[in-house]
Amino acid sequence: MADARWLDEREAHVWRSYHRLLRDFGGAVDRQLERDAGLSGADYALLVPLSEAPDELLRMRDLGTQVDWDRSRLSHHVSRMEKRGLVSREDCPDDARGSMVRLTAAGRGAIQAAAPQHVETVRRYFFDPLSAGDLEVLGRVFDRMLARLDEDAEGDPCTR
Amino acid sequence: MADARWLDEREAHVWRSYHRLLRDFGGAVDRQLERDAGLSGADYALLVPLSEAPDELLRMRDLGTQVDWDRSRLSHHVSRMEKRGLVSREDCPDDARGSMVRLTAAGRGAIQAAAPQHVETVRRYFFDPLSAGDLEVLGRVFDRMLARLDEDAEGDPCTR
Repeated sequence: MADARWLDEREAHVWRSYHRLLRDFGGAVDRQLERDAGLSGADYALLVPLSEAPDELLRMRDLGTQVDWDRSRLSHHVSRMEKRGLVSREDCPDDARGSMVRLTAAGRGAIQAAAPQHVETVRRYFFDPLSAGDLEVLGRVFDRMLARLDEDAEGDPCTR
Repeated sequence: MADARWLDEREAHVWRSYHRLLRDFGGAVDRQLERDAGLSGADYALLVPLSEAPDELLRMRDLGTQVDWDRSRLSHHVSRMEKRGLVSREDCPDDARGSMVRLTAAGRGAIQAAAPQHVETVRRYFFDPLSAGDLEVLGRVFDRMLARLDEDAEGDPCTR
Protein backbone atom coordinates (compact mmCIF):
# COMPACT_ATOMS: atom_id res chain seq x y z
CA MET A 1 0.00 0.00 0.00
CA ALA A 2 2.22 2.81 -1.27
CA ASP A 3 0.44 5.77 0.24
CA ALA A 4 2.40 8.97 0.82
CA ARG A 5 0.86 9.08 4.30
CA TRP A 6 1.97 5.52 5.19
CA LEU A 7 4.65 5.32 7.91
CA ASP A 8 8.22 5.51 6.62
CA GLU A 9 10.95 3.22 7.91
CA ARG A 10 12.05 5.42 10.79
CA GLU A 11 8.47 6.11 11.91
CA ALA A 12 7.63 2.40 11.72
CA HIS A 13 10.65 1.66 13.90
CA VAL A 14 9.60 4.22 16.52
CA TRP A 15 6.03 2.90 16.38
CA ARG A 16 7.11 -0.71 16.97
CA SER A 17 9.46 0.39 19.77
CA TYR A 18 6.63 2.31 21.41
CA HIS A 19 4.50 -0.86 21.49
CA ARG A 20 7.34 -3.06 22.73
CA LEU A 21 8.00 -0.47 25.43
CA LEU A 22 4.36 -0.45 26.57
CA ARG A 23 4.45 -4.21 26.87
CA ASP A 24 7.90 -4.77 28.40
CA PHE A 25 7.84 -1.76 30.71
CA GLY A 26 4.35 -2.66 31.94
CA GLY A 27 5.56 -6.24 32.50
CA ALA A 28 8.60 -5.10 34.52
CA VAL A 29 6.47 -2.81 36.70
CA ASP A 30 3.88 -5.56 37.29
CA ARG A 31 6.52 -8.14 38.26
CA GLN A 32 8.09 -5.73 40.74
CA LEU A 33 4.75 -4.95 42.40
CA GLU A 34 3.87 -8.64 42.64
CA ARG A 35 7.29 -9.57 44.03
CA ASP A 36 7.70 -6.73 46.54
CA ALA A 37 4.13 -6.21 47.71
CA GLY A 38 1.89 -9.00 46.36
CA LEU A 39 -0.04 -6.42 44.32
CA SER A 40 -1.12 -6.53 40.68
CA GLY A 41 -0.78 -3.51 38.41
CA ALA A 42 -4.58 -3.15 38.62
CA ASP A 43 -4.49 -3.16 42.45
CA TYR A 44 -1.83 -0.46 42.40
CA ALA A 45 -3.77 1.62 39.85
CA LEU A 46 -6.73 1.79 42.28
CA LEU A 47 -4.67 2.19 45.47
CA VAL A 48 -2.87 5.31 44.18
CA PRO A 49 -5.93 7.61 43.75
CA LEU A 50 -7.46 6.26 46.98
CA SER A 51 -4.27 6.99 48.95
CA GLU A 52 -4.23 10.54 47.54
CA ALA A 53 -7.93 11.30 48.14
CA PRO A 54 -9.18 13.34 51.15
CA ASP A 55 -9.85 10.85 53.97
CA GLU A 56 -8.67 8.12 51.57
CA LEU A 57 -12.29 7.87 50.38
CA LEU A 58 -13.73 8.14 46.83
CA ARG A 59 -17.06 7.63 45.13
CA MET A 60 -16.91 4.55 42.88
CA ARG A 61 -17.85 6.76 39.96
CA ASP A 62 -14.96 9.17 40.56
CA LEU A 63 -12.50 6.33 41.06
CA GLY A 64 -13.66 4.87 37.73
CA THR A 65 -13.14 8.20 36.01
CA GLN A 66 -9.64 8.53 37.42
CA VAL A 67 -8.48 5.14 36.15
CA ASP A 68 -10.74 5.14 33.06
CA TRP A 69 -12.24 1.69 33.72
CA ASP A 70 -15.83 0.79 32.94
CA ARG A 71 -18.25 0.15 35.81
CA SER A 72 -18.25 -3.63 35.53
CA ARG A 73 -14.46 -4.02 35.57
CA LEU A 74 -14.15 -1.58 38.46
CA SER A 75 -16.89 -3.23 40.50
CA HIS A 76 -15.40 -6.71 40.06
CA HIS A 77 -11.92 -5.57 40.94
CA VAL A 78 -13.02 -3.59 44.00
CA SER A 79 -14.88 -6.71 45.23
CA ARG A 80 -11.73 -8.79 44.93
CA MET A 81 -9.69 -6.14 46.76
CA GLU A 82 -12.36 -5.92 49.46
CA LYS A 83 -12.07 -9.69 50.08
CA ARG A 84 -8.33 -9.23 50.53
CA GLY A 85 -8.96 -6.43 53.03
CA LEU A 86 -7.28 -3.68 50.98
CA VAL A 87 -10.39 -1.49 50.61
CA SER A 88 -13.89 -1.31 52.09
CA ARG A 89 -17.16 -0.25 50.47
CA GLU A 90 -19.48 2.25 52.11
CA ASP A 91 -22.86 3.72 51.20
CA CYS A 92 -22.82 7.18 49.71
CA PRO A 93 -24.42 9.61 52.23
CA ASP A 94 -26.11 11.88 49.66
CA ASP A 95 -26.91 9.41 46.88
CA ALA A 96 -28.83 6.22 47.69
CA ARG A 97 -27.67 4.51 44.52
CA GLY A 98 -24.04 5.59 44.82
CA SER A 99 -21.31 3.80 46.69
CA MET A 100 -17.96 4.84 48.08
CA VAL A 101 -14.63 3.02 48.44
CA ARG A 102 -12.26 3.59 51.33
CA LEU A 103 -8.63 2.57 51.72
CA THR A 104 -8.16 0.30 54.77
CA ALA A 105 -5.12 0.30 57.04
CA ALA A 106 -3.97 -2.86 55.22
CA GLY A 107 -4.40 -1.12 51.86
CA ARG A 108 -2.39 1.84 53.11
CA GLY A 109 0.32 -0.53 54.34
CA ALA A 110 0.42 -2.35 51.00
CA ILE A 111 0.88 0.78 48.91
CA GLN A 112 3.45 2.20 51.34
CA ALA A 113 5.40 -1.06 51.12
CA ALA A 114 5.24 -1.10 47.32
CA ALA A 115 5.87 2.57 46.53
CA PRO A 116 9.63 3.05 47.10
CA GLN A 117 10.60 0.08 44.92
CA HIS A 118 7.95 1.01 42.38
CA VAL A 119 9.58 4.42 42.02
CA GLU A 120 12.99 2.72 41.73
CA THR A 121 11.64 0.60 38.88
CA VAL A 122 10.15 3.61 37.12
CA ARG A 123 13.50 5.39 37.51
CA ARG A 124 15.56 2.46 36.31
CA TYR A 125 13.65 1.90 33.06
CA PHE A 126 12.07 5.25 32.31
CA PHE A 127 14.03 8.19 33.76
CA ASP A 128 17.62 6.96 34.16
CA PRO A 129 18.03 6.35 30.40
CA LEU A 130 17.06 10.01 29.72
CA SER A 131 19.44 12.96 29.58
CA ALA A 132 18.15 16.33 30.85
CA GLY A 133 17.62 17.34 27.21
CA ASP A 134 15.71 14.11 26.43
CA LEU A 135 13.43 14.70 29.41
CA GLU A 136 12.64 18.17 28.17
CA VAL A 137 11.84 16.90 24.65
CA LEU A 138 9.65 14.13 26.08
CA GLY A 139 7.74 16.59 28.27
CA ARG A 140 7.17 18.94 25.35
CA VAL A 141 6.17 16.17 22.94
CA PHE A 142 3.72 14.53 25.37
CA ASP A 143 2.10 17.91 26.11
CA ARG A 144 1.69 18.58 22.39
CA MET A 145 0.17 15.13 21.74
CA LEU A 146 -2.23 15.56 24.68
CA ALA A 147 -3.24 19.05 23.53
CA ARG A 148 -4.30 17.66 20.17
CA LEU A 149 -6.20 14.77 21.76
CA ASP A 150 -7.99 17.23 24.06
CA GLU A 151 -8.80 19.52 21.16
CA ASP A 152 -10.45 16.71 19.18
CA ALA A 153 -12.19 15.23 22.25
CA GLU A 154 -13.97 18.55 22.83
CA GLY A 155 -15.61 18.35 19.42
CA ASP A 156 -16.50 14.66 19.68
CA PRO A 157 -19.82 13.75 21.35
CA CYS A 158 -18.61 10.15 21.98
CA THR A 159 -15.85 11.12 24.40
CA ARG A 160 -16.54 12.01 27.97
CA MET B 1 8.25 11.15 51.52
CA ALA B 2 11.36 13.26 50.94
CA ASP B 3 13.61 10.69 49.30
CA ALA B 4 16.39 11.92 47.03
CA ARG B 5 15.30 9.27 44.53
CA TRP B 6 11.64 10.37 44.57
CA LEU B 7 10.44 11.97 41.30
CA ASP B 8 10.97 15.71 41.08
CA GLU B 9 8.30 18.06 39.79
CA ARG B 10 9.30 17.89 36.14
CA GLU B 11 9.65 14.10 36.19
CA ALA B 12 6.28 13.75 37.92
CA HIS B 13 4.71 15.90 35.20
CA VAL B 14 6.22 13.75 32.42
CA TRP B 15 5.14 10.59 34.25
CA ARG B 16 1.53 11.77 34.60
CA SER B 17 1.50 12.90 30.95
CA TYR B 18 2.79 9.49 29.86
CA HIS B 19 -0.14 7.81 31.62
CA ARG B 20 -2.72 10.26 30.30
CA LEU B 21 -1.26 9.70 26.84
CA LEU B 22 -1.55 5.91 27.11
CA ARG B 23 -5.18 6.26 28.10
CA ASP B 24 -6.34 9.02 25.74
CA PHE B 25 -4.34 7.88 22.74
CA GLY B 26 -5.51 4.29 23.20
CA GLY B 27 -9.08 5.59 23.49
CA ALA B 28 -8.83 7.63 20.28
CA VAL B 29 -7.41 4.67 18.35
CA ASP B 30 -10.10 2.32 19.68
CA ARG B 31 -12.94 4.71 18.79
CA GLN B 32 -11.61 5.12 15.25
CA LEU B 33 -11.38 1.33 14.72
CA GLU B 34 -14.89 0.81 16.08
CA ARG B 35 -16.36 3.61 13.98
CA ASP B 36 -14.59 2.87 10.69
CA ALA B 37 -14.42 -0.91 10.74
CA GLY B 38 -16.48 -2.28 13.66
CA LEU B 39 -13.30 -3.64 15.25
CA SER B 40 -12.07 -3.41 18.83
CA GLY B 41 -8.46 -2.63 19.65
CA ALA B 42 -8.08 -6.29 20.70
CA ASP B 43 -9.45 -7.50 17.32
CA TYR B 44 -6.99 -5.27 15.51
CA ALA B 45 -4.09 -6.42 17.69
CA LEU B 46 -4.71 -10.03 16.57
CA LEU B 47 -5.54 -9.24 12.94
CA VAL B 48 -2.22 -7.43 12.34
CA PRO B 49 0.16 -10.36 13.02
CA LEU B 50 -2.19 -12.76 11.19
CA SER B 51 -2.30 -10.52 8.11
CA GLU B 52 1.51 -10.35 8.10
CA ALA B 53 2.12 -14.10 8.64
CA PRO B 54 2.99 -16.48 5.75
CA ASP B 55 -0.31 -17.83 4.39
CA GLU B 56 -2.06 -15.64 7.00
CA LEU B 57 -1.75 -18.58 9.40
CA LEU B 58 -0.19 -18.76 12.89
CA ARG B 59 0.03 -21.23 15.74
CA MET B 60 -2.05 -20.02 18.69
CA ARG B 61 1.09 -20.13 20.82
CA ASP B 62 3.05 -17.87 18.43
CA LEU B 63 0.12 -15.46 18.11
CA GLY B 64 -0.01 -15.27 21.92
CA THR B 65 3.71 -14.52 22.09
CA GLN B 66 3.41 -11.75 19.51
CA VAL B 67 0.65 -9.91 21.36
CA ASP B 68 1.82 -10.97 24.85
CA TRP B 69 -1.58 -12.24 25.99
CA ASP B 70 -2.05 -15.25 28.24
CA ARG B 71 -3.60 -18.43 26.84
CA SER B 72 -7.02 -17.95 28.37
CA ARG B 73 -7.52 -14.38 27.13
CA LEU B 74 -6.27 -15.34 23.66
CA SER B 75 -8.45 -18.42 23.43
CA HIS B 76 -11.60 -16.53 24.47
CA HIS B 77 -10.95 -13.69 22.09
CA VAL B 78 -10.16 -15.95 19.14
CA SER B 79 -13.45 -17.81 19.79
CA ARG B 80 -15.38 -14.55 19.66
CA MET B 81 -13.62 -13.52 16.43
CA GLU B 82 -14.30 -16.97 14.96
CA LYS B 83 -18.04 -16.54 15.60
CA ARG B 84 -17.89 -13.23 13.74
CA GLY B 85 -16.16 -14.95 10.82
CA LEU B 86 -12.91 -12.95 11.08
CA VAL B 87 -10.64 -15.96 11.73
CA SER B 88 -10.89 -19.74 11.63
CA ARG B 89 -9.23 -22.36 13.83
CA GLU B 90 -7.39 -25.34 12.37
CA ASP B 91 -5.59 -28.34 13.83
CA CYS B 92 -1.84 -28.12 13.92
CA PRO B 93 -0.40 -30.71 11.47
CA ASP B 94 2.68 -31.62 13.53
CA ASP B 95 1.39 -31.19 17.07
CA ALA B 96 -1.79 -32.96 18.16
CA ARG B 97 -2.33 -30.59 21.09
CA GLY B 98 -1.54 -27.45 19.17
CA SER B 99 -3.96 -25.36 17.18
CA MET B 100 -3.60 -22.79 14.43
CA VAL B 101 -5.52 -19.63 13.58
CA ARG B 102 -6.09 -18.45 10.03
CA LEU B 103 -7.29 -15.09 8.76
CA THR B 104 -10.51 -15.46 6.73
CA ALA B 105 -11.42 -13.37 3.68
CA ALA B 106 -13.76 -11.37 5.94
CA GLY B 107 -10.91 -10.81 8.43
CA ARG B 108 -8.65 -9.64 5.60
CA GLY B 109 -11.38 -7.30 4.41
CA ALA B 110 -11.89 -5.88 7.89
CA ILE B 111 -8.25 -5.06 8.46
CA GLN B 112 -7.87 -3.61 4.97
CA ALA B 113 -10.89 -1.39 5.60
CA ALA B 114 -9.54 -0.25 8.97
CA ALA B 115 -5.85 0.23 8.18
CA PRO B 116 -5.73 3.51 6.20
CA GLN B 117 -7.75 5.45 8.75
CA HIS B 118 -5.90 3.74 11.58
CA VAL B 119 -2.63 5.04 10.17
CA GLU B 120 -4.20 8.50 9.78
CA THR B 121 -5.15 8.42 13.47
CA VAL B 122 -1.65 7.33 14.50
CA ARG B 123 -0.22 10.15 12.36
CA ARG B 124 -2.59 12.76 13.69
CA TYR B 125 -1.93 12.14 17.38
CA PHE B 126 1.53 10.59 17.44
CA PHE B 127 3.70 11.63 14.49
CA ASP B 128 2.32 14.97 13.28
CA PRO B 129 3.06 16.70 16.63
CA LEU B 130 6.75 15.64 16.29
CA SER B 131 9.48 17.62 14.56
CA ALA B 132 12.21 15.63 12.77
CA GLY B 133 14.46 16.28 15.78
CA ASP B 134 11.79 15.10 18.24
CA LEU B 135 11.34 11.88 16.25
CA GLU B 136 15.06 11.21 16.43
CA VAL B 137 15.13 11.79 20.21
CA LEU B 138 12.10 9.54 20.69
CA GLY B 139 13.67 6.76 18.62
CA ARG B 140 16.92 6.99 20.57
CA VAL B 141 15.22 7.15 23.97
CA PHE B 142 12.89 4.19 23.28
CA ASP B 143 15.84 2.09 22.06
CA ARG B 144 17.79 2.91 25.23
CA MET B 145 14.83 2.07 27.50
CA LEU B 146 14.27 -1.23 25.65
CA ALA B 147 17.97 -2.13 25.82
CA ARG B 148 17.89 -1.85 29.61
CA LEU B 149 14.67 -3.86 29.87
CA ASP B 150 16.22 -6.58 27.66
CA GLU B 151 19.41 -6.57 29.69
CA ASP B 152 17.54 -7.16 32.96
CA ALA B 153 15.12 -9.67 31.42
CA GLU B 154 18.08 -11.87 30.42
CA GLY B 155 19.15 -12.20 34.05
CA ASP B 156 15.60 -12.74 35.41
CA PRO B 157 14.27 -16.34 35.45
CA CYS B 158 10.67 -15.05 35.69
CA THR B 159 10.64 -13.40 32.26
CA ARG B 160 10.23 -15.36 29.11
